Parts: sequence; structure tokens; C-alpha cells
Amino acid sequence: MNSRVRLLVHYEGTRYHGWQIQPDQTTVQETIEQAYYNMTGFRARIMASGRTDSGVHAAGQVVCLNNPSRHDPEALLRGLNAWLPDDIVILAANAVSNDFNPRKHAVGKHYRYNIHNHPVRPVFERAFRWHVRRSLDHASMNQAVAHLIGEQDFSAFRASGCEAKSPIRRVDFAFWTLKHPLLRLDIFGNGFLKQMVRNIVGTCVEAGYGRIPPQQIKSILKGKDRRLAGPTSPARGLCLLRVYYAESEYLKAISDIK
Amino acid sequence: MNSRVRLLVHYEGTRYHGWQIQPDQTTVQETIEQAYYNMTGFRARIMASGRTDSGVHAAGQVVCLNNPSRHDPEALLRGLNAWLPDDIVILAANAVSNDFNPRKHAVGKHYRYNIHNHPVRPVFERAFRWHVRRSLDHASMNQAVAHLIGEQDFSAFRASGCEAKSPIRRVDFAFWTLKHPLLRLDIFGNGFLKQMVRNIVGTCVEAGYGRIPPQQIKSILKGKDRRLAGPTSPARGLCLLRVYYAESEYLKAISDIK
Repeated sequence: MNSRVRLLVHYEGTRYHGWQIQPDQTTVQETIEQAYYNMTGFRARIMASGRTDSGVHAAGQVVCLNNPSRHDPEALLRGLNAWLPDDIVILAANAVSNDFNPRKHAVGKHYRYNIHNHPVRPVFERAFRWHVRRSLDHASMNQAVAHLIGEQDFSAFRASGCEAKSPIRRVDFAFWTLKHPLLRLDIFGNGFLKQMVRNIVGTCVEAGYGRIPPQQIKSILKGKDRRLAGPTSPARGLCLLRVYYAESEYLKAISDIK
Repeated sequence: MNSRVRLLVHYEGTRYHGWQIQPDQTTVQETIEQAYYNMTGFRARIMASGRTDSGVHAAGQVVCLNNPSRHDPEALLRGLNAWLPDDIVILAANAVSNDFNPRKHAVGKHYRYNIHNHPVRPVFERAFRWHVRRSLDHASMNQAVAHLIGEQDFSAFRASGCEAKSPIRRVDFAFWTLKHPLLRLDIFGNGFLKQMVRNIVGTCVEAGYGRIPPQQIKSILKGKDRRLAGPTSPARGLCLLRVYYAESEYLKAISDIK
């Protein structure tokens, strides 16, 4: 058998050192692999659409594994959820062809970043929002992200230690929505470098404070130097919202959000 | 001086044994009183609009205290928030007249109860929703709550140990809204007995399962016996959303939500 199963996973990243297995750290990947072992007695390696950093959330991570057990996807869904801790859940499980690769076959991703822009810190959403006390200029932040659209070299927004071969990525949509006190960035692209969204957010906030003019994003991109961009925003505000595997669905999602 | 200050408080109830001070238990009241002491060096007794039970949340609890310190309300807001843990926050602080009583002067309250009606448990909202796997019939639940409207004897929905003198309360509005997978009850009334909302929710869910006909609520009310109603729903789904002190604002809120 050894049929391949695709899982749609939600997790709150707060307690985890990111997606990928690391020695002596609790990660989401390791936790799901352990749940699979507890349920089936088999060791499986789980592949994801991409890593998420320590503390980053996912409401639509797509992963897959080869399933040598007798359990069908429906049974895996129920069984894994019973073994998983309360901050990770499998939303859907489907059989996929054995050549499905969640990273290589992804055509686009949607990330969301939440800022709580209010003098008083949030209580209920505190695990999912960056608290920024000073009032941010929403229009400036949107002027800033407008310069990111298109296929560009994102070296200036790439973390040191990023292992991607190329710094070229295509951003298809980026927009800040204000629902006071929530300031939310939706960003769609064909892929994102390590901490790219959080570095973009940190730079937008500099523009929102009025510390840099929004059009400075253009020279930051051209400079290709991480030190030109703003600070990295906290992981807690970031969520991998969805991974797309069909171009048509990806384009429809962008046109729906516009 | 000793001027009276009114505070608008948000808290996540998960870690607390309810609002009211109890020996050997951490409560919200005690935590705020301790923050006030840490900030000002004065001991103050804090009065609330009403108690919330262990695990129940508030996004609009109104409390007051006599403030003998030199700090004005604005300074209290900032200082208390600095001393409070991350699951309690003061949203607003205002000077009020010395005869303001947050419990006696309340004209109405708005409670909200959230059910996550989906086969798979919630991750992000897990602290704020009751997870009900089996599909509930939304229409039946609304037929059930319709019978609660008006001034009635709510003995059947009152917890043992409720210290209220009278079991008569007036419910002005109660409606279940379905935003799948969220099923949300908004209920407005002039006051609520101990666990009254959670007992109403537990009974509505019996109607949603089809275990009791919705109109049975009428005979349950008439019977005035707690054993006739359904089980008490979990505290985590309940939130005290707002307390009203002006009749006009209270009536406007009800007409806005309709």
C-alpha cells in the first residue's frame, strides 16, 4: 500500500520552535510524527509546504506523509486529532497521488499578519497579534507594500541563515486592512524567504510611524541589504493562512480579497 | 480625596476561579486588587457589576473602587495594566460619583455564548468555545430561546448555591446566530442568576440535538426545578460582553443586534 495522504493542519505556534524537527526542541513536525507513531506504530516522515518559524501560526499548512498503516484518511483524521495536543489539529485528510509534493507543487501562499494598534494591549487575541501602542498611518503602510508587488530580489527582507538558493520571489498582492484596533496585512506570493513577511511588516511599521517615507521601500529593495530594511516583527502576529495548488483557485482568492 | 473610579475590564477567565475573592484560589478580583496595591501602596476593595463563574470570560466587566492614591484615572489605567498579568486588562478608567454602584445601577447585561459546532475541535478559539461535534439544529435552538423572553421565574435554570434572593429575571433578547462552524447566543437581560446562561445553553443544545422539543422550555420554566432543564454548558464558551447603565443605550444595543 504505502499510499500518500495529504493533511490540512491548523496550529498555534506559540509553544513550538517552528515547523521543522530540531534536536532538543519541540516542533510541530515532530509532534505530528509522534502522534502518527502513537496511533499506528509506524514512523513516517512528514513533508510540509514550507517551514514556519518559531512562534508562527498556521490556519492552513499543507503536509503529506506516506501511510503504510491500515488506516484510511478518515480514520487518520480522527485518530491523529485524538493523539495531538490541543494547539494542533488536522482539519482534513485526503488520499493523494504518490508524486504529490506539498512544497514543489504549491503555486501560491497567503500569509496574514495582525497588528493590535491601540494604547492598551489585547487580552483575547494576545497570542495572535503584535501590540503596537503608537497610532500607525494606514495609508503610508499601504503605499509601502505597493512597491513590493511583482517578481523581485527580496534580499533586503531575507533573514540571515535563509537557505533558499534564490532571493527572487513574486509577490502578487499585499494590502493592509484597518478594522480598528486591528491592522491586518494580507500578502499573496509564489513563495516567501525566511522571515520575509515579518521583515516587510517591520518596515511597514517604520513607514506607519512616519520614520521612513513609503517610497523608500524601492531603494531598500534595490540595495539588497538586510540592514536597510526595518526590524523583524514578532512571530505571534503571523499566520500561514492558505497554500494553493491550483493556479485558478489562487487567482480567484486574490480577486476575491481585492 | 478618595474619589471613585470606574474601570472597564477585559479578562480571559481560563486561569481564574471566577471573579470573587476566595481563600486559596486565584480570582480576577484579587488579582486586580493586588495590582492596585502594587502600584499605589493602598488596599482597595473592588466592586463589580456581578460575579462571573470560574472560567468565564469578560469583554466588558464594569468595576469600581475608591481611590485614595494621588493617581488620576488615566495614570491608573496605565499603571494597573503594567502590573496586571497578560490575561487581564483595563480598557478604560473614569472618575464617577461616589454613589456609583456597578451592580445596583446596571440596567441590563449582554452575555454571549460560543459553540464550535464541527466534527473537528477548534485550535485558535479553543479557550472561548464549547466544542460540540454533532450537528445542532439552529432553528430548534432559536425556537427554544424564544420562550425565555419576558419577566419570569428562572428557578429551573438556577444553579444550586445561587445566593440571589429572587429567581425572577427579565430576558429582553435571546438569539442564536449561525456562522458555521460558530453558533453564537446573544442574550440580553436585566440580570442573570448563577449559571443561568450556561443552563439555558445546555438546554438549547438538547433541543438542537432533537432530544427535547423546543416548546418544552415552557414546561421546564413552569416546573421551577433545576433537574428538568439540560446540563450546564462549559464555562469557556461564555463571555460577559457588556454592562449597560443607561436604559437608552441598552435598548439601542438590542435594536442594533436584531
